Amino acid sequence: MQIRTDLAMESQALSPSPSGVTSRRTTRGNLEEIDVKVESDEAAKALEKDKGAYITLYHPLLSHADAEERKEIIESLARVVRELTPKGGDILVVGLGNRHMTADSLGSRVVEDLLITRHMKDMTEGELKNRLRGVCGVAPGVLGVTGMETAEMIKGITEHVHPAAVIAIDALAARESSRIGTTIQVTDTGIRPGSGVGNHRAGLNRDSLGVPVIAVGVPMVVYAAVIARDALSLLLRDMDVNEDEHQQAMDGMVEQITRQGLGELVVTPREVDELVGRVARLIADGLNLALQPGLSLEEIQYLSHDGP
Amino acid sequence: MQIRTDLAMESQALSPSPSGVTSRRTTRGNLEEIDVKVESDEAAKALEKDKGAYITLYHPLLSHADAEERKEIIESLARVVRELTPKGGDILVVGLGNRHMTADSLGSRVVEDLLITRHMKDMTEGELKNRLRGVCGVAPGVLGVTGMETAEMIKGITEHVHPAAVIAIDALAARESSRIGTTIQVTDTGIRPGSGVGNHRAGLNRDSLGVPVIAVGVPMVVYAAVIARDALSLLLRDMDVNEDEHQQAMDGMVEQITRQGLGELVVTPREVDELVGRVARLIADGLNLALQPGLSLEEIQYLSHDGP
Amino acid sequence: MQIRTDLAMESQALSPSPSGVTSRRTTRGNLEEIDVKVESDEAAKALEKDKGAYITLYHPLLSHADAEERKEIIESLARVVRELTPKGGDILVVGLGNRHMTADSLGSRVVEDLLITRHMKDMTEGELKNRLRGVCGVAPGVLGVTGMETAEMIKGITEHVHPAAVIAIDALAARESSRIGTTIQVTDTGIRPGSGVGNHRAGLNRDSLGVPVIAVGVPMVVYAAVIARDALSLLLRDMDVNEDEHQQAMDGMVEQITRQGLGELVVTPREVDELVGRVARLIADGLNLALQPGLSLEEIQYLSHDGP
Amino acid sequence: MQIRTDLAMESQALSPSPSGVTSRRTTRGNLEEIDVKVESDEAAKALEKDKGAYITLYHPLLSHADAEERKEIIESLARVVRELTPKGGDILVVGLGNRHMTADSLGSRVVEDLLITRHMKDMTEGELKNRLRGVCGVAPGVLGVTGMETAEMIKGITEHVHPAAVIAIDALAARESSRIGTTIQVTDTGIRPGSGVGNHRAGLNRDSLGVPVIAVGVPMVVYAAVIARDALSLLLRDMDVNEDEHQQAMDGMVEQITRQGLGELVVTPREVDELVGRVARLIADGLNLALQPGLSLEEIQYLSHDGP
Repeated sequence: MQIRTDLAMESQALSPSPSGVTSRRTTRGNLEEIDVKVESDEAAKALEKDKGAYITLYHPLLSHADAEERKEIIESLARVVRELTPKGGDILVVGLGNRHMTADSLGSRVVEDLLITRHMKDMTEGELKNRLRGVCGVAPGVLGVTGMETAEMIKGITEHVHPAAVIAIDALAARESSRIGTTIQVTDTGIRPGSGVGNHRAGLNRDSLGVPVIAVGVPMVVYAAVIARDALSLLLRDMDVNEDEHQQAMDGMVEQITRQGLGELVVTPREVDELVGRVARLIADGLNLALQPGLSLEEIQYLSHDGP
Repeated sequence: MQIRTDLAMESQALSPSPSGVTSRRTTRGNLEEIDVKVESDEAAKALEKDKGAYITLYHPLLSHADAEERKEIIESLARVVRELTPKGGDILVVGLGNRHMTADSLGSRVVEDLLITRHMKDMTEGELKNRLRGVCGVAPGVLGVTGMETAEMIKGITEHVHPAAVIAIDALAARESSRIGTTIQVTDTGIRPGSGVGNHRAGLNRDSLGVPVIAVGVPMVVYAAVIARDALSLLLRDMDVNEDEHQQAMDGMVEQITRQGLGELVVTPREVDELVGRVARLIADGLNLALQPGLSLEEIQYLSHDGP
Repeated sequence: MQIRTDLAMESQALSPSPSGVTSRRTTRGNLEEIDVKVESDEAAKALEKDKGAYITLYHPLLSHADAEERKEIIESLARVVRELTPKGGDILVVGLGNRHMTADSLGSRVVEDLLITRHMKDMTEGELKNRLRGVCGVAPGVLGVTGMETAEMIKGITEHVHPAAVIAIDALAARESSRIGTTIQVTDTGIRPGSGVGNHRAGLNRDSLGVPVIAVGVPMVVYAAVIARDALSLLLRDMDVNEDEHQQAMDGMVEQITRQGLGELVVTPREVDELVGRVARLIADGLNLALQPGLSLEEIQYLSHDGP
Repeated sequence: MQIRTDLAMESQALSPSPSGVTSRRTTRGNLEEIDVKVESDEAAKALEKDKGAYITLYHPLLSHADAEERKEIIESLARVVRELTPKGGDILVVGLGNRHMTADSLGSRVVEDLLITRHMKDMTEGELKNRLRGVCGVAPGVLGVTGMETAEMIKGITEHVHPAAVIAIDALAARESSRIGTTIQVTDTGIRPGSGVGNHRAGLNRDSLGVPVIAVGVPMVVYAAVIARDALSLLLRDMDVNEDEHQQAMDGMVEQITRQGLGELVVTPREVDELVGRVARLIADGLNLALQPGLSLEEIQYLSHDGP
């Protein structure tokens, strides 16, 4: 049984830190930022993450922060995205995941709240037009729903639309339930094959698309098997068991998990439907602010939502 | 930490069978039917279930059965519901739960697929009219959404609509993930306070409403804490630990569960959105068949769905 | 063919103003307020409206007003509702209409955006609790969906919940397409039988419920037949036709309308789905502000929406 | 003001039949089939339709037909689609329109009910696999939502997925309200620029995509302006007016329509939400039957819906 996490900061915590990884942690009130850089091939292999920058924002009440903290989160996210994104040219935002599976619908919901402007250049008059950067967005759906690899579709669209970069939004799987809906990971390495709640088969990155790919992900589930295993592991540490007994217990747990059919079960908060909506809006606000430097947050919220 | 299950058959399995409980099990192909009767006050107390009949239908592929097995499940459900329901008079079907929380939306979805006929008596002409029993339905929403106890609302509606009986549909919590979407429980004891995915505070039963209340429930979640605890318990049984160590491990698990905030986390299949839709349709077909003896299953499916 | 309008200001415009009707019109920027009072039985009969107060707010860009104007509309609506609503006691907000029919879903959507607080009195601690007025809400659905008259259900709920007043929200039919999504009518006469997009059969008012009923309505459709007839009527006025020809033309139009099956057809903007969402939010903001004098608009929007 | 219709059979009825058009009409019970072939450039110009085959199926109760008639409609649609579609290779089905605008959501809903099989070739074992033709599907959304021309996206996807043909599904505008939800048009000419409820700017056809494009459309709206004008025109025919008066009346109507802002208003049945769902399912059944000759209608309905 493999330990399944899409968060670089969790991967790093699992391994004894290999050379070629640097990390920096800053906090500001309740908002924590962890910058991990994977710089060597050995580090990439050890962490099972591609070389690149991984920035994680964590706030214990991310989706329920009060107005002031919410603004700070949005501005931090905007800053991080801006740093990884080319200055000029159109941006294509791709909402990954299955809109009909709540925990996996984050990507498509972010695209719905996004300020779509690329087509306005031909339409809008005057002043607003010059302040808008061209942004387009699509939520293509997952392989089981479309019959096509998302990567195939995005590759084809990219070749015709010629964006300067792709930003891919995805719901992630984490190792700890406390990460659900509280953590945002931004990386310039794109989407790794097999990651995400829906297990995308093909990756999306600069190699496959020919343009930079920034990925923004938020954990929405923990696999039930991971929670069960972690809990046991911690327990055994406290008990007076020898190595054989430890191994035997872990094997027993794996057998239990398999027998109970836990493999495909996920752990979510009961109110995951509402949570996804709130997080999607937060991410959309952050992206809109990053991509539209000519607009204030108030203008963005007015233009992108149903009222303020 | 309390063991949380809404299934009588699971409660019974937990306790050494007290006197005053009878149970009968019959199977037909893959479909298993378990009839539990709780007949004494002691039994009711031991199982934490009210006195009455609890009939459970279990099929490992309930929502994905092939056409023939599906028909058999629907007909079995119809028979069980018919046995507990008064022969004459209007029936009020109440869809419990929160339609905006996927795992808790079963009740409201069943009401959407129900054949609503009570108002047709004044409208329809001729032959069909005489073959229809009056059925009405409402999905009032949960306390957090309405600000009103469901029981208050249903009591008020019942006093004005005068149904011969109320049938309440609810998503349940089970102890084993294998029960999710595979088990239907029908009981003439109504809804017990504090049960269901959404933890209804007040109960719905003959005492509170003044008419018979039949409850139809399907497990849609298992609380994460329950799964973790069960897995550990089974493991410890296989390990050579004494009673003190056993207790210590269980306490450690409870602490872990609390620390990880597992209390409100639920385990569901990833595809719970689709699962709820399929199960809702199955239950609706069964209820429609039970309540409209003048119609065939084909007529029911034609009238209640978008086509066959 | 009857002229179908739910707006008192349109009824009044149709008739030569009978005695017993007073009306006052004030404008402030783009926002127009018309207060109509129907005070005599003759006036009530002539206008086909119950005796009482009808306040209409009109803004040509109601749902797309900029931030400042939006605030003004919300505050005007709050003031009007507050004037007609008892000062103390709980308020029950009823969302009328069919949530599965877009143009008729306004009521249920407003209830979704409402600040529901009645149940919090038992839950919330400290300061916030004392600032909240008890508000509960329900969207019971329409006769064709529930098999029960909405009035039956609301009567039953009211008897158990004991609100000081009921506020009913409804999508209306207007005579002029320019009213769609731009006009809000508030009245203390409740809901008249047969009004609304969905043609409610029974009315909701102080007589039937025993408490004051304030109705808030927004036109969402114009019946196609009305538009066709109006257009023709205006045309004929410009043409040199005698009375016989006029009558003949109008009769021909009625025949045309019947032949084309226009009776049940409605005229809506293409983007009615988005429009309903925007208007629902505006109405909810206004109601929340009216009913929660202890909260600012910012607090209300923070508490009732997914973020600011 | 232009007469706006997407139905070839209506275009043809408008013009005195030019040479180069052949049409054939067959009826079977309530189901009428009209085959129009536009064969000359003059005819194409006169009808404002591209050269090619236009087959129209009309049934007055299309979406509410009884089980037997429904089967006949599905089989007729399957036959028509099969005749225009290449025998071998994968098929890409494109759902056009805006899923968030009810009357324009037909395309995306059909894709949701479609049997998606292209990815199964690598997954499924044994017998079923050999009976399946590769079908993939996407509902890319409209320009205002994505910022990209649908044609750009489909062109890019087509180049990577290499289908043998594209089938595009769209909601249409008709001239007569009796066409709404009762008529299916199938054509091998693809989608004409500017057609559909949502006014697509760029067309989708063999020239732009490099593979055959079959378009399947169902009228879902009539523009309000069209209805008003038609009604007047018929009336004037019956009245004793000279040509000048006729012209004057028509001009007056145009002015009225503009003044009332009817230009973007559409006429739909009140229950358009339900209608779209029923029609989408019918179209999906027909396409599935056409594209999966190895499966029976029963197998298709079992595999593509939530139960039978």
